[in-house]
Amino acid sequence: MNLKDIARRAKHASRKLAQLTSIERTNLLLLMCDSLSQAQPQVLEANRLDIESAQKSGLSKPMLDRLHLDEKRFKNMLQGLRDVAAQKDPLGQIIEHRQTPSGLELSKVRVPIGVVVMIYESRPNVTCESASLCFKSGNSVILKGGSEAIHTNRAICDAMRSVLKATALEDCIFFIDSSDRNVVKELVQLEGLVDLAIPRGGEGLIRSVLDSARVPVIKHSKGVCHTFVDESADLQMALDICENAKCQRPSVCNAMEALLVHEKIAGEFLPLCTKRLGEEGVTFRGAIGEPVDDWSAEYLDLILAVKIVPSLEEAISHINTFGSGHSDAIITNSEASKSRFLNEIDSAVVYVNASTRFTDGAEFGMGAEIGISTDKLHVRGPMGATELTTYKWLGVGSGQVRGS
Amino acid sequence: MNLKDIARRAKHASRKLAQLTSIERTNLLLLMCDSLSQAQPQVLEANRLDIESAQKSGLSKPMLDRLHLDEKRFKNMLQGLRDVAAQKDPLGQIIEHRQTPSGLELSKVRVPIGVVVMIYESRPNVTCESASLCFKSGNSVILKGGSEAIHTNRAICDAMRSVLKATALEDCIFFIDSSDRNVVKELVQLEGLVDLAIPRGGEGLIRSVLDSARVPVIKHSKGVCHTFVDESADLQMALDICENAKCQRPSVCNAMEALLVHEKIAGEFLPLCTKRLGEEGVTFRGAIGEPVDDWSAEYLDLILAVKIVPSLEEAISHINTFGSGHSDAIITNSEASKSRFLNEIDSAVVYVNASTRFTDGAEFGMGAEIGISTDKLHVRGPMGATELTTYKWLGVGSGQVRGS
Repeated sequence: MNLKDIARRAKHASRKLAQLTSIERTNLLLLMCDSLSQAQPQVLEANRLDIESAQKSGLSKPMLDRLHLDEKRFKNMLQGLRDVAAQKDPLGQIIEHRQTPSGLELSKVRVPIGVVVMIYESRPNVTCESASLCFKSGNSVILKGGSEAIHTNRAICDAMRSVLKATALEDCIFFIDSSDRNVVKELVQLEGLVDLAIPRGGEGLIRSVLDSARVPVIKHSKGVCHTFVDESADLQMALDICENAKCQRPSVCNAMEALLVHEKIAGEFLPLCTKRLGEEGVTFRGAIGEPVDDWSAEYLDLILAVKIVPSLEEAISHINTFGSGHSDAIITNSEASKSRFLNEIDSAVVYVNASTRFTDGAEFGMGAEIGISTDKLHVRGPMGATELTTYKWLGVGSGQVRGS
Repeated sequence: MNLKDIARRAKHASRKLAQLTSIERTNLLLLMCDSLSQAQPQVLEANRLDIESAQKSGLSKPMLDRLHLDEKRFKNMLQGLRDVAAQKDPLGQIIEHRQTPSGLELSKVRVPIGVVVMIYESRPNVTCESASLCFKSGNSVILKGGSEAIHTNRAICDAMRSVLKATALEDCIFFIDSSDRNVVKELVQLEGLVDLAIPRGGEGLIRSVLDSARVPVIKHSKGVCHTFVDESADLQMALDICENAKCQRPSVCNAMEALLVHEKIAGEFLPLCTKRLGEEGVTFRGAIGEPVDDWSAEYLDLILAVKIVPSLEEAISHINTFGSGHSDAIITNSEASKSRFLNEIDSAVVYVNASTRFTDGAEFGMGAEIGISTDKLHVRGPMGATELTTYKWLGVGSGQVRGS
């Protein structure tokens, strides 16, 4: 089947899916969970094959870890699916209502987007999360995972799709069973059939999508997250937050990559910080350590760029220049600094006295996330089922015509 | 100045603009209105120059009419600016608030998008509308109008910008004083500086933007609007609505281009319709008249494509296939048909027993519009000041770190 036919079938199925009731969609999600649960042996066996060939082709250790699916991770994946099923249905919500002077009743109603193309790498649970969130929000999804996870992804999709055959809805979830790189290019050019492309991954993947796309794109791009320790900060709190933001899980996009410290407290704070984070294995660059080549680098590792800044203003300017618009935090006891930082930092999530690690669909109460948007249109930050919807206006009249 | 520098200055200015209070922004808009009012002689003289050279270069009569600015149109333009100034401020609105289990206070707050590039043709009042809506919503705008209106657009921009010099905010409104077509291409590739491009115009303009864009785009594309007269329709109402939708202003995007008639009432309705619309000068294609080459054609003229359909289902399928996702209407007295049409038509605005001509920012209570989105992401349908905003999440804590 060619990609245009796949997209056409996905579009057709999305229209059928949009007509299901909330209960029907929830029940199908729960059936998918059962089906996936029964398919556990096949999925784990498929994962063993992927791991084997990834080892042969010399995939890095962190990538191998991301690819790996064991019983515990499989169980978490199923729980994620159940969480999505249990969430409030976003569809049909009346976002706004107004009556025009001529008596036309205008309602702005939440509806599915249509066909979503999801392009991602490595972690096979993204397959399950993406398919379930798209289904919950009434969208068809075309999944293009990394070739290193192809057997695992196929097994997960097969188990989920098998449930949909009985209701002739299996075209709502398509898995692209090809590692041809041109597939992505072609998919994101299918104007009129594909309504949204979500690339989630490294800069190479994002770049290749943006360079070819003719359909709207919401990027889950890199996270160059900052923490700024202001002159009035509670230093103990700053240490706790910096340790959490940098060390708890350094390989994820909401981990801190750069620390900015106000010059008035740098002399006191930096030695404490070096000690505390150093004990966790962090190495430092910039103000303490080797020079920094690129203040926009995403290390995804126990490396921290450090800069001493003369003022809040400089901190804000640095973050708005070198950050990636993901998540940035200030540690401060000053109301003025707090308010200015919240107002002026141009990022998806701006924190006061908290760790950047909170930027996450589950933490934000969305159940799961299909990604974290570093774009500014449609969605910013974590993207759950509600963020996978749009709206249309319904105008109900009784013969109204427009006056001249 | 090169385009990158312009965008950089616009970005810088947008950050200053975002910090103004609502009252400051409103006052500046009212001052722009005064300044424009005083510049009326210069603007009309500039328009005379544009009209003169457009006549020489053989611009079509409808295009000349769109380009023309007289005292009445100038007055309307000023009133539009006052309406935008008087509207509720969209910025700062708390769209959502939640507290996480750890006590982190999360607020989703409405903020400006940043830098908007507006690419449009002909009508010089779009210059004033776009600049005022962007300013109201805290965005910088870079205006790229058609070369046929260059003198008029420059005079309008100069008058608006002159007010902003006193507050060093003039970089919030940039006018691209060039008719070089590569300008558009370069502007829509300025990732990180330009946050949104809005092309408003014909297919050629939209295509050229989509082919080059690396920044997010919201299209104001063509309007292939349908009216479906169902078997249960009140035929008198259907006639009134069809006349209004087709004849009141055939050159605009919310005018009807195609009429679908249920076969059960076609025999009775079509002769009435031919007579009524024929008297207004409408010529017909399809079921009555010459064959239709392209059911997706946007005539923008007193031409109507007509199709007899055997069922509501066929009507819905035709509209979802050949429509442009703009505005479509059903005339019916059946609750079942009404509900099915509202649910299944995949357009920005779906009407029951009303004219498609209502799709308009002012009619929707938005004061004015920068365009009508035929896209599905971020905005659908009329796009006013609120639709020119995005949100960011603010997370205010007291030392929260993420648990493992």
